[in-house]
Amino acid sequence: MEIKIMKNILDRNQHKAEEVRNLLSSKKLLMVNIISSPGAGKTTLLERTCEVLGPDIRIGVIEGDITTDRDAQRLKKYNIPIVVINTEGGCHLDSHSIFKVLESFDLEKLDVLFVENVGNLICPSQFDLGENFKIAIVSTAEGDDKPGKYPMLFREAEAVVLNKIDLIPYTNFNLTNFRSDLKMINGQVPLFEVSCTKGDGLAGWFDWLNNRIKGIILTREVSQVKNL
Amino acid sequence: MEIKIMKNILDRNQHKAEEVRNLLSSKKLLMVNIISSPGAGKTTLLERTCEVLGPDIRIGVIEGDITTDRDAQRLKKYNIPIVVINTEGGCHLDSHSIFKVLESFDLEKLDVLFVENVGNLICPSQFDLGENFKIAIVSTAEGDDKPGKYPMLFREAEAVVLNKIDLIPYTNFNLTNFRSDLKMINGQVPLFEVSCTKGDGLAGWFDWLNNRIKGIILTREVSQVKNL
Repeated sequence: MEIKIMKNILDRNQHKAEEVRNLLSSKKLLMVNIISSPGAGKTTLLERTCEVLGPDIRIGVIEGDITTDRDAQRLKKYNIPIVVINTEGGCHLDSHSIFKVLESFDLEKLDVLFVENVGNLICPSQFDLGENFKIAIVSTAEGDDKPGKYPMLFREAEAVVLNKIDLIPYTNFNLTNFRSDLKMINGQVPLFEVSCTKGDGLAGWFDWLNNRIKGIILTREVSQVKNL
Repeated sequence: MEIKIMKNILDRNQHKAEEVRNLLSSKKLLMVNIISSPGAGKTTLLERTCEVLGPDIRIGVIEGDITTDRDAQRLKKYNIPIVVINTEGGCHLDSHSIFKVLESFDLEKLDVLFVENVGNLICPSQFDLGENFKIAIVSTAEGDDKPGKYPMLFREAEAVVLNKIDLIPYTNFNLTNFRSDLKMINGQVPLFEVSCTKGDGLAGWFDWLNNRIKGIILTREVSQVKNL
């Protein structure tokens, strides 16, 4: 019975996610769903991304949090539009809540909308929000065995950010093991090995993300030319 | 509708949890539900606990994992009874799966049964497994803001283990902030600040746990005397 109920919930979520996707696609706007365990570095990656890409790219953020607006407070200094969704105990965001808050944004004035999901390596990967793609973040402090132990997200993600590489010397994290564990789950996925606090390795992430955003902007410009 | 469904699921879980609790109580056996984010140190805390308390206390372990038996493999060397529950994508253990695997243990020959829940700071705290109490583990690498951001578990836990204190010098973790954040959520909860890999601070945890286990053994001995 519970499996059937879960299927119904996921079906309804999927249906609404397609609505979100169609809306964002009509606005030629990229939506990125950022997923990780608590404290792996989602907000810090967003801070660095706002600092480096913010001057050229128009960024908006949806902050998923159980009960506080602490992450949103950290991003306020970038003067970007931010909406907080408090799940009140819920372990993931869903497409219905995303659809509802989209009306709070002036979508014509954005190039990319980041969704910082609730800190959870499991449930958020099962709920399509209508995003263009998911990003998985994992911290070296969590250990090198996470892709094999929590395979769903690593299979679904279009890029993986391994954060806190500056802590490797102080832990028993084995980078070779992590890479091969990830390769077993998703052999093709781009991996960015970074330290969001120290800045190491972030250039590759910015390039990759920038290319994805520029791709969307290009389709918007092409469609504007067609409409002239 | 989803709220009602969730309530039904939780009610059924609660009912079975009472059955588990009654069974374990009749055997005078302590069950401890260990909950944390992925990679915060549940298995490493169990390793240290087996090493130090194992010679005097008869330990059994239920390993909750999504898809692998990696954590169970790490504990095999202690020659203790271990049963793995693979949730196949499920984000938490429930009391029905615990009840089912209890028959795999010789409960008369155990003093404490540890349940290592699926790595998730949210969902496992909503599902009573029939345990005597929950333990929350959080790693310094996750940041000092976790009690406020994920309050449910920290409110429910009967003890909190702050792990990886050896990493504090290399992170922006602020111990004073963490302590006051935790105090706001659960002012009375015992806090053990430890490094499970280096051994720092573990004596307090062993003492506290040992006392709880000895309390159960004492009630068992008293009831045996009464039955003479």
